[in-house]
Amino acid sequence: MAVMEPRSNPSSVERAIAWIDAANGRLAAEAVPVSEASGRVLAEDICAAYPIPSADCAALDGFAVRARETLGAGAYHPIVLAACLVAAGGALPEGTDAVVPLEHAEPQQDAGVAMVEAVAAGDNVHRRGAIAGAGAILLTGSTRLGPRQLGLLACARLTRLLVVRRPRVRIVIAGSVMSGAVEDSDGPMIRAAVERDGGLPETTGLADAFAAGADIVLVIGGTGPGAADKSATALAASGELSIRGVALRPGETAGIGRTAGGTLAMLLPGAPAACLWTYEMFAGRAIRRMAGRDPRLPFRRRPMTTARKIVSAVGLTEICAVRYRPDGAVEPTASFAETGLKAAVEADGFVIVSETSEGHPAGSVVDVYLYDDIGTSPEARA
Amino acid sequence: MAVMEPRSNPSSVERAIAWIDAANGRLAAEAVPVSEASGRVLAEDICAAYPIPSADCAALDGFAVRARETLGAGAYHPIVLAACLVAAGGALPEGTDAVVPLEHAEPQQDAGVAMVEAVAAGDNVHRRGAIAGAGAILLTGSTRLGPRQLGLLACARLTRLLVVRRPRVRIVIAGSVMSGAVEDSDGPMIRAAVERDGGLPETTGLADAFAAGADIVLVIGGTGPGAADKSATALAASGELSIRGVALRPGETAGIGRTAGGTLAMLLPGAPAACLWTYEMFAGRAIRRMAGRDPRLPFRRRPMTTARKIVSAVGLTEICAVRYRPDGAVEPTASFAETGLKAAVEADGFVIVSETSEGHPAGSVVDVYLYDDIGTSPEARA
Repeated sequence: MAVMEPRSNPSSVERAIAWIDAANGRLAAEAVPVSEASGRVLAEDICAAYPIPSADCAALDGFAVRARETLGAGAYHPIVLAACLVAAGGALPEGTDAVVPLEHAEPQQDAGVAMVEAVAAGDNVHRRGAIAGAGAILLTGSTRLGPRQLGLLACARLTRLLVVRRPRVRIVIAGSVMSGAVEDSDGPMIRAAVERDGGLPETTGLADAFAAGADIVLVIGGTGPGAADKSATALAASGELSIRGVALRPGETAGIGRTAGGTLAMLLPGAPAACLWTYEMFAGRAIRRMAGRDPRLPFRRRPMTTARKIVSAVGLTEICAVRYRPDGAVEPTASFAETGLKAAVEADGFVIVSETSEGHPAGSVVDVYLYDDIGTSPEARA
Repeated sequence: MAVMEPRSNPSSVERAIAWIDAANGRLAAEAVPVSEASGRVLAEDICAAYPIPSADCAALDGFAVRARETLGAGAYHPIVLAACLVAAGGALPEGTDAVVPLEHAEPQQDAGVAMVEAVAAGDNVHRRGAIAGAGAILLTGSTRLGPRQLGLLACARLTRLLVVRRPRVRIVIAGSVMSGAVEDSDGPMIRAAVERDGGLPETTGLADAFAAGADIVLVIGGTGPGAADKSATALAASGELSIRGVALRPGETAGIGRTAGGTLAMLLPGAPAACLWTYEMFAGRAIRRMAGRDPRLPFRRRPMTTARKIVSAVGLTEICAVRYRPDGAVEPTASFAETGLKAAVEADGFVIVSETSEGHPAGSVVDVYLYDDIGTSPEARA
């Protein structure tokens, strides 16, 4: 059996993250129609081009009235008026200046509507420009566009927006180290994670890995120790391998560098749990930043008590899967070393134990990152 | 001015939800490739067809050894062996039965590797089938497939899966009640919300609204009171309008029923905030259930203290936007009646005040639904 050289000097996770953060930034802006802007990140502040609303209109469904004609109206003193029913958002009829809500008005059998509450001029009315005057900022740059933001932009009659370009993420399956099973397992996982983080995944072979046209290259597999590190060899030959090996478990054989053209390139181990965690910690961070998102892990963090000891090796930053207990605490599950991705699938979240720590004793409060899958969170949804 | 009849007997929100829950269920299953299954919901339990792993393999990067040859090794008593470097996930070489982690082994200048810790047979090894035996359940039906679940399925060499079919959601812009501005504002918002909830949006005109081919029809606008309720008239004429008007603010003019062909149909007010909330409370609920997801609101709920009084009308279920304060409490923002969708965009979450409640006094604990936009949540991410 040949003896091969392992990585001698793995980078700390902190140094790898600092390298990545210094190596990339938000991508340039591109214009897209509002109808295709869902999930995108604004590249600029959005100002109202027109007043919103563009005319005085009803704030709720009710009867448009001249406010002064309702003076003195009350439950014991209804005032019957000829009043026009208006829907929320509808313009006020000429001459009216207030809206009596439906529940304070009672249409009469013959004609007219009995008002049982007085209103003042402007009550339940959106004045022209009341929501936003022309030029007012509606959304600030860096806002991620969800349904309600898109609705506001459409209300403001915006049709095209400047958003941050989506990073083109080249995924290269370099092949497994020694087990055929590894080769097929990472592509669907990493593509889904890239899409989650705002990237546009594309898949190529190792031959085209380091050609131009991508914003970041992820080479999966072939990072193994010794002769199995063909990805590291390929990157070092065609560009620059700045970090070779990281003190992260799972994920020790990750590599980080640049192609000859200067494109960020990351080597992710082929073993699925290691591939997942080097993606989450390093590749995803770069992609999220390029896409204009918060670069940090896209999981909510919450202090929780661990009911059992969490053990970790000093000198390695370790990801420990945890699950909820009925008593509201968490406990470690099988490790990634024991059950691979199955540990991630069975977990409700994870704890990151720093390289200077041996872990956490039972009963201590730990920072838990929560997957927040619907139905499993200890905080009810309804 | 003509006097028009408002809805006389609006449904309670509870009754509307009960009607919707009784009216629809999870759609049938369809087979998709693993590569296209991201975000989908499993329609069946997934069992391992083969043992995972399919051979004994290394659980972490290290040196494959015969465990008995490391007996007695320690920091002060290294044992030098001819050992083979293996990467995590790699099959163990013939004759070896344990892996010494890289940090407990030191390759020698000339030949061999010094082991500074003894291992037992099976240490740091995934035995064939140890993660899952053939036939073991890997994921249960109803699981939503994210990156880590897709990775596990690919590890198990699954290529096609049965997932719940995505509901075809027909969005019909019926036109505004009285203001041209309303017409354009709802489409992008509702399409984004439908996609968020797992539906496939398609847009048609009112003429084709109630034809076959959709799983649910959302008619937007034309729900206004009186003569402006052309959508309600159209649905009542071509099918059945079971609920006309709901005691929800914003959203009083919503309608719920079925087309002549029996397809669920919902009439959403055109005013943007009312459109958003009737979508979230009613239409989205039906779509999420059809898609196999949790039908409840897709927002995390958390008890928080309100620093200011939240006011609501008795007899109406009211959505009140709230925002975080630096002291960790929440306070109501401008109402939807005052600033429409701008209130939703400026909010960090919302409170649902039931129709039997006048609201909540300052200092009381309320259930807050959180938008959880990254960077704004009081729970840090990192």
